[in-house]
Amino acid sequence: MKKLVECVPNFSEGKDRGKINKIFNGAQKVKGVKVFELEWDKSHNRSLFTIVGEPNDVLKSVFESIKVAIKLIDMEKHHGEHPRIGAIDVVPFIPVSGVSMKECIALANKLGRKVAEELKIPVYLYEEAAKKKDRRNLADVRRGQYEGLREEIKTKRDKKPDYGPSEFHKTAGAVVIGARKYLIAYNVNLDSRDVEVAKDIASEIREKGGGLPAVKAMGFKVDGYAQVSINLVDYEKTNIDKVYFEIEKLAKKKKISIKNSEIYGMIPLNSLVKMVKDQLKADGFKVDQVLETKIFE
Amino acid sequence: MKKLVECVPNFSEGKDRGKINKIFNGAQKVKGVKVFELEWDKSHNRSLFTIVGEPNDVLKSVFESIKVAIKLIDMEKHHGEHPRIGAIDVVPFIPVSGVSMKECIALANKLGRKVAEELKIPVYLYEEAAKKKDRRNLADVRRGQYEGLREEIKTKRDKKPDYGPSEFHKTAGAVVIGARKYLIAYNVNLDSRDVEVAKDIASEIREKGGGLPAVKAMGFKVDGYAQVSINLVDYEKTNIDKVYFEIEKLAKKKKISIKNSEIYGMIPLNSLVKMVKDQLKADGFKVDQVLETKIFE
Repeated sequence: MKKLVECVPNFSEGKDRGKINKIFNGAQKVKGVKVFELEWDKSHNRSLFTIVGEPNDVLKSVFESIKVAIKLIDMEKHHGEHPRIGAIDVVPFIPVSGVSMKECIALANKLGRKVAEELKIPVYLYEEAAKKKDRRNLADVRRGQYEGLREEIKTKRDKKPDYGPSEFHKTAGAVVIGARKYLIAYNVNLDSRDVEVAKDIASEIREKGGGLPAVKAMGFKVDGYAQVSINLVDYEKTNIDKVYFEIEKLAKKKKISIKNSEIYGMIPLNSLVKMVKDQLKADGFKVDQVLETKIFE
Repeated sequence: MKKLVECVPNFSEGKDRGKINKIFNGAQKVKGVKVFELEWDKSHNRSLFTIVGEPNDVLKSVFESIKVAIKLIDMEKHHGEHPRIGAIDVVPFIPVSGVSMKECIALANKLGRKVAEELKIPVYLYEEAAKKKDRRNLADVRRGQYEGLREEIKTKRDKKPDYGPSEFHKTAGAVVIGARKYLIAYNVNLDSRDVEVAKDIASEIREKGGGLPAVKAMGFKVDGYAQVSINLVDYEKTNIDKVYFEIEKLAKKKKISIKNSEIYGMIPLNSLVKMVKDQLKADGFKVDQVLETKIFE
């Protein structure tokens, strides 16, 4: 099976559809990758999309979109609600299939060097690719935002970038590049109109509350019903089925049943394969037994 | 997502590896398809392989392999334990993804006409593609085998082929072409050394015994343990998870647990998607939310 990597570059342009399309089209120029899920938000003044393909193709593709973005976005004139430090704000690489985290960290470094050398933009490496402990968390790297970091980068030692000059690019600022695990967004809707039930269950299942590993959860009321909204930040630790059955168990104690559940957005095939293995004691089951994988071998 | 069809042509050559490879390579000549899982059996004197791809590509690919096989196989000299009526014995088309059974029946007819007109071989249509009730079952179509049918086709009205001449091709005989559902081979191993337990459970779950729809099952002893060996002939009616949990329930009554289970060979992605929907009440989940499908859209 092909090696597959995902990349989700975030750009500081969420208003001008023409510019957004040009950046998106830049990524699409590279053959062999799929570029999709273009999203933008006017009040955040920010857009993002997803690139999937083989590692080197994805690298080329995101670099093409970055080259376009630099020409179109001027951070000196940028306003938006969302924190940002540059025209190309953040670029994570995510392993999907047949690719290790190590390879994604290598990709982040390769792109970082390329952006620094060819485009003269300072690069900070974050999360799994972080070279410093205090750069693992994206919010920490972005602290002070464009306006603050523009000054601090010149003087503060702990703000020195991992690659590139200790000075902002005149219009593009800086960029955060990194590697992280695939995040599955998953909602479980309860057959209850009491939002407190969802909040209680969320607090019980989330890792921070001593619940399931790699689970973030919140309780909401959606369409009149209690919803547990979940981010699975490492499905190899806790997968959709594990969290579903845990919620079912906790809800049962409150005499409440699950109405339904919904996977929000995309999910990697390996998550489904893992569910089959875990639920059906099918340890030997392999992703390349899925027929469709044959045609992208 | 791409439309995907599978085709599994069976040829009456299971000894001469050179010839088998030439037939296999014939199928591989067509771009866009994947040809794999080449199997052959000397005592059956028979070989088969799998072609996956978009409908028209698969049609071209199997036709190329048929043209090669006709030149290499002489049924007048063929001996083997397995029933057969021709050099290209049977060719089923199977819907995998985004393709209806109707489209596979149309493919069977298209190939049937092509084989009849261009290669002058009589064609019988079977299973879902059958035009006559008594041709649905492959064993019925093949009754009398090559040697018997060679004579009967000329005189018996009910042996008149669906396409092509009422006379065997001099060396290739006749061919059975059709459409059928995807078959999942699935084994559930019990934590018991008593084969009777597996046989009992098999008889309870199989459709013939009033069990689950579209389930065939047998009990065996494999590596010293009781195994329920299952063919799911329509996973939209009964999928891997349904049969697993039914066996778990029946075994529990006998105070026996499941050791493990194994999917034998390939499984369509839609089966995994259906399991997620059914087990997690995720009715809205769609196959194109699986990330990997993006790259063969």
